[in-house]
Amino acid sequence: MKYAEVTCTKFVDETFSKAPVPGGGGVASLVGALGVALGGMVCNLTTGKKKYAQYEEDIQRIMKEAEGLKETMMGMIDQDAENFLPLSKAYGLPTSTEEEKEYKEKTMQAALKVAIQVPVDIVKVSYKAIKLHQELADKGSKLAISDVGCGVLCLKGAMMSGWLNVVINLSSIHDEAYVAQIKDELLPMLDEGQKICDEVYEKVLNILNS
Amino acid sequence: MKYAEVTCTKFVDETFSKAPVPGGGGVASLVGALGVALGGMVCNLTTGKKKYAQYEEDIQRIMKEAEGLKETMMGMIDQDAENFLPLSKAYGLPTSTEEEKEYKEKTMQAALKVAIQVPVDIVKVSYKAIKLHQELADKGSKLAISDVGCGVLCLKGAMMSGWLNVVINLSSIHDEAYVAQIKDELLPMLDEGQKICDEVYEKVLNILNS
Repeated sequence: MKYAEVTCTKFVDETFSKAPVPGGGGVASLVGALGVALGGMVCNLTTGKKKYAQYEEDIQRIMKEAEGLKETMMGMIDQDAENFLPLSKAYGLPTSTEEEKEYKEKTMQAALKVAIQVPVDIVKVSYKAIKLHQELADKGSKLAISDVGCGVLCLKGAMMSGWLNVVINLSSIHDEAYVAQIKDELLPMLDEGQKICDEVYEKVLNILNS
Repeated sequence: MKYAEVTCTKFVDETFSKAPVPGGGGVASLVGALGVALGGMVCNLTTGKKKYAQYEEDIQRIMKEAEGLKETMMGMIDQDAENFLPLSKAYGLPTSTEEEKEYKEKTMQAALKVAIQVPVDIVKVSYKAIKLHQELADKGSKLAISDVGCGVLCLKGAMMSGWLNVVINLSSIHDEAYVAQIKDELLPMLDEGQKICDEVYEKVLNILNS
């Protein structure tokens, strides 16, 4: 089943069930796609408007990038489910002999590095989308400013959910250099991304209240 | 079109388009439903497990409540689109004469109170769902603890997105007693709800890192 192609109702009901997918990873991908789609809508409501003519080139660029990030996020919903399979199989391997234990451990370690890929990408892609919304808060139509705010709120949730799914895998990976590399790459994004989201939210709230 | 019944891909693409719905309100409802569905999944992964037998009654109650909140959120996606119609019509009313201006103003004020209903409910329902996740962080299966974290992150985004859509409507409503009543009811929930989400997220991160 391709989860991106089921109805919203079915996706939510399948999440609610005890089936392992869609879980936090698939939900985070969809929520991220919804967030960046709100940014795309703001671009669509801004482009061609005289009042924002000075930003037309920026809006076109942001819209194109948002379209790409949206497609990436939607693809990650099913990629995450697929990447979970090797780990799911590895959990079930026998551990009666030392050889079996060693083989299971080796298989698990490789499977964890597959399972972590989409969560890592969720953080990176959400961060990129958050930066686009930061620009949209200044250059997008003020009539759609609340949607820029809702967009960053979704993306913040997606990015931090991605991070939780990174951490759960990292905690079982023994390759310390690999763990350090992932943390070094993602932690600054996570930190800056959250700050930008909070700033954009406050800016939107101020504009709505003024 | 019932947006809850289109595919996730179509919902996201329709959001991205310049069509007014789904916008921030519809997205917030879906993201809230996804959040509470993750809580439901945690209940489904906890119920019947010996290790959590002491919480079985609580888990059953939380699961039932989560199911109800999920249904409410899914219904709000299309309710929000419907509730936007009177306001959309009112914007187009003529204002050539004083009488027309007065009629438009009166119609607008009534339509704003319709348009604000779902955003107000998003805040309330998300808050209730956040409280359920607060319990799940202690009583749910630790194997699914990251999903409790992803759940509150989605619900926090939904609640705050709901609030932005409340504020955008409140800023045009002239009935001061009505505005004060909504603020008095929602601001404490928004404040406490965010605090709970942040606490649950930290708790989840600590468990994953331990």
